[in-house]
Amino acid sequence: MDNKNNSQTSTSKAPPLGGGGGLPFYKYSDLSVADIARLVQRNVDPANEIRDLVEGVIANVKQNGDSALLDYALKFDKVELDKLYLGKAELEEIASAVSPDQQEALQTAYANIYKFHKAQLKTEDKVETMPGVTCWRELRAIEKVGLYIPGGTAVLPSTFLMLGIPARIAGCSEIVVCSPPQKNGKVNAFIAYVALMLGIDKVYLVGGSQAVAAMAYGTESITKVDKIFGPGNQFVTKAKTIIQSTTTTAIDMPAGPSEVLVIADETAKPAYVAADLLAQAEHGIDSQSILVCTSQVIADATIKEVEKQLAVLPRAEIARQAIANSYIVITDTLDEAMDFSNQYAPEHLILATEKWSAITPKIINAGSVFLGNLTPESVGDYASGTNHTLPTSSYSRAYSGVSVDSFVKKITFQFLTEEGIKNIGPAVEILADMEGLHAHRNAVSVRMAKSQN
Amino acid sequence: MDNKNNSQTSTSKAPPLGGGGGLPFYKYSDLSVADIARLVQRNVDPANEIRDLVEGVIANVKQNGDSALLDYALKFDKVELDKLYLGKAELEEIASAVSPDQQEALQTAYANIYKFHKAQLKTEDKVETMPGVTCWRELRAIEKVGLYIPGGTAVLPSTFLMLGIPARIAGCSEIVVCSPPQKNGKVNAFIAYVALMLGIDKVYLVGGSQAVAAMAYGTESITKVDKIFGPGNQFVTKAKTIIQSTTTTAIDMPAGPSEVLVIADETAKPAYVAADLLAQAEHGIDSQSILVCTSQVIADATIKEVEKQLAVLPRAEIARQAIANSYIVITDTLDEAMDFSNQYAPEHLILATEKWSAITPKIINAGSVFLGNLTPESVGDYASGTNHTLPTSSYSRAYSGVSVDSFVKKITFQFLTEEGIKNIGPAVEILADMEGLHAHRNAVSVRMAKSQN
Repeated sequence: MDNKNNSQTSTSKAPPLGGGGGLPFYKYSDLSVADIARLVQRNVDPANEIRDLVEGVIANVKQNGDSALLDYALKFDKVELDKLYLGKAELEEIASAVSPDQQEALQTAYANIYKFHKAQLKTEDKVETMPGVTCWRELRAIEKVGLYIPGGTAVLPSTFLMLGIPARIAGCSEIVVCSPPQKNGKVNAFIAYVALMLGIDKVYLVGGSQAVAAMAYGTESITKVDKIFGPGNQFVTKAKTIIQSTTTTAIDMPAGPSEVLVIADETAKPAYVAADLLAQAEHGIDSQSILVCTSQVIADATIKEVEKQLAVLPRAEIARQAIANSYIVITDTLDEAMDFSNQYAPEHLILATEKWSAITPKIINAGSVFLGNLTPESVGDYASGTNHTLPTSSYSRAYSGVSVDSFVKKITFQFLTEEGIKNIGPAVEILADMEGLHAHRNAVSVRMAKSQN
Repeated sequence: MDNKNNSQTSTSKAPPLGGGGGLPFYKYSDLSVADIARLVQRNVDPANEIRDLVEGVIANVKQNGDSALLDYALKFDKVELDKLYLGKAELEEIASAVSPDQQEALQTAYANIYKFHKAQLKTEDKVETMPGVTCWRELRAIEKVGLYIPGGTAVLPSTFLMLGIPARIAGCSEIVVCSPPQKNGKVNAFIAYVALMLGIDKVYLVGGSQAVAAMAYGTESITKVDKIFGPGNQFVTKAKTIIQSTTTTAIDMPAGPSEVLVIADETAKPAYVAADLLAQAEHGIDSQSILVCTSQVIADATIKEVEKQLAVLPRAEIARQAIANSYIVITDTLDEAMDFSNQYAPEHLILATEKWSAITPKIINAGSVFLGNLTPESVGDYASGTNHTLPTSSYSRAYSGVSVDSFVKKITFQFLTEEGIKNIGPAVEILADMEGLHAHRNAVSVRMAKSQN
């Protein structure tokens, strides 16, 4: 089994204890703080090579607009486009290839995602902080949002649902969608079908960092947006982080390769755990599938199951390389397992134990959590209702996944009555003096003079 | 009056109509789309000169830790420090200089800010998206946060309250505070007093981009944090955006110079409007104070009041330059005024009109809003309860101000029963097939086989 990608574990002081199925394992109690720091580190950004390349693409799109996009379609997507988008009639024609079963599955996903995200949209109460001083927050949709839907080898209609549904619930007035063209100059039928489900009747045939640049700066055909959402390869991600730090266009979050951490104890089912590890591993060779297990017996049985299931997996080659980039940690207790997990800060956390309710309160860092033996990550990837756009690469320490919150601003309001300005005015005058800001003081004083008349 | 800073208006096709007090004014109906675009543009980032400098500071701090910080204290703050922080006893000694009146004012601000922010902390209901499929979100505090409190000429205890209170409400387990040392190697008494109010017993004497670097990478004394908050000069801001795009440490938001947009009609009070414009202008020469007014009479009277109030203002020189960087737009209606405001996307929006309730629903982009003639921005800057850490430079199109939300993650959870996996399984199997992800399908199939036994 190819272990050459496994650089972070090979530099660890505590050598892996071995283990089959390409998964080295470690005993938690043998690991030093430095060992753990090395194990949980991943995706350290080589940064500048990609940066220079992507900055060139951004500058070209900013300068040359649509014509740069048509050039890149030819160069990167190997397709000569007549025009940069598909309209409603074309989408309808393409979408007609979606079978009734597939339509029903997409509608189930849509309904569940809609129901969960709709519940996130709440109005807030007004708070009277002092008599006559009332403060509150109101939601406003971000007006113009851009959704990047990856294409090429991995066409992800599920991602389109995960971004389009909260954008619609938030009430964004303009939703720009970019997805790379296939060789035939079109998008995949599922993408077309989801666009129509969402009431979106135009999809731009633009991929890669050039799509991010087009949505950030605008071109003749593509509207400049206020915030860009969606996963992509390292070029898309780099373009998003550059855009975020050089323009006023926001991004959802940085994105790295997908990952899962499974905490399992003696009540876990090895066949299920193996299936979950492999579901993550088939995403790409840079995916990580980490098992943290209190039972050596379950860990060993899981390794056997991984081998067995790999044998019949169509994407086995990819999964095998991702598994080689993964590892198992054996702990004495579920608390220790959770401690390791919080240091790893996983995108997806599966609690493969019947005792999940005892350790849930100890979760500090995770994107989305799957509870018990009957809740695979797959259900959240597609249809349980939660969002699958989640913080990877330990970003779950500080970031949440995408939700309706990601598509709105919360604007604060305050209103003072005459009583309010009398009550709060003297404190504000003193505070403004403390900061040496006389005009700040005066803005209160002129009003107090009047209200005291 | 010095108009040389007023570059964005001088390039506008529609020439300013004149106006006194250094405030050029424009008739909204005369402005083209391009004119408006030029008027609302501000703070275009020259980027790379500052970037190179700040990248050098970050690299040095990453490499040399505390010793780099001590060097920078000598170089930038002109003070030789014995140690990098003040402890509890030192803070108490420094804080004893705060007078009872000042203590009371700080306590009023604390109480109001606490009350408003506490109401933001809510638990969410569980949602059963399908029978047996339950989804919800739980809040978790970001574990380690860093607060940057500016010092030097503008010491801002109010900013410390605005960041420290929501961090405490969220329950962050570690709050690292950095503030530049004064010439005497200490912090200002108000900063020390606020630290103690917040239960923070250590303040690091580190300022500028080196403080951001220290909190992002950690040093011998300073803990690496998950998210960095706080305003600062252009070096601090550049360091934050670099950190955000090159590490997993998040930031609150990018920050530019402060700004206010006042919408006024014939019911506005010129003396109050002038006071509000000047309160903004005294912040710094790059601040902007925009007046959008439906009444030429009120606009003219406001200009006269600006001149009158400027005459007695201690920071008149700064305010005068900021005013020279500002302008007035005359509109026919409040709707037009709001339309301009939404395009400007102000940090602070004051509705100086008795008809504020009619136009509030039309607000799309703003950071914080002040309603009616008795609600100056100053009250929100200090004590109404709302947060004053707000999106500037048109970032309010996509960003919200700081709140308790900024200090927590919302983690999604899902739990399936046997009925749940039976209900949702078939749809997930089809969706996984559509994306060609067989192992995703299998993670459901293995569980369905079992649950159908």
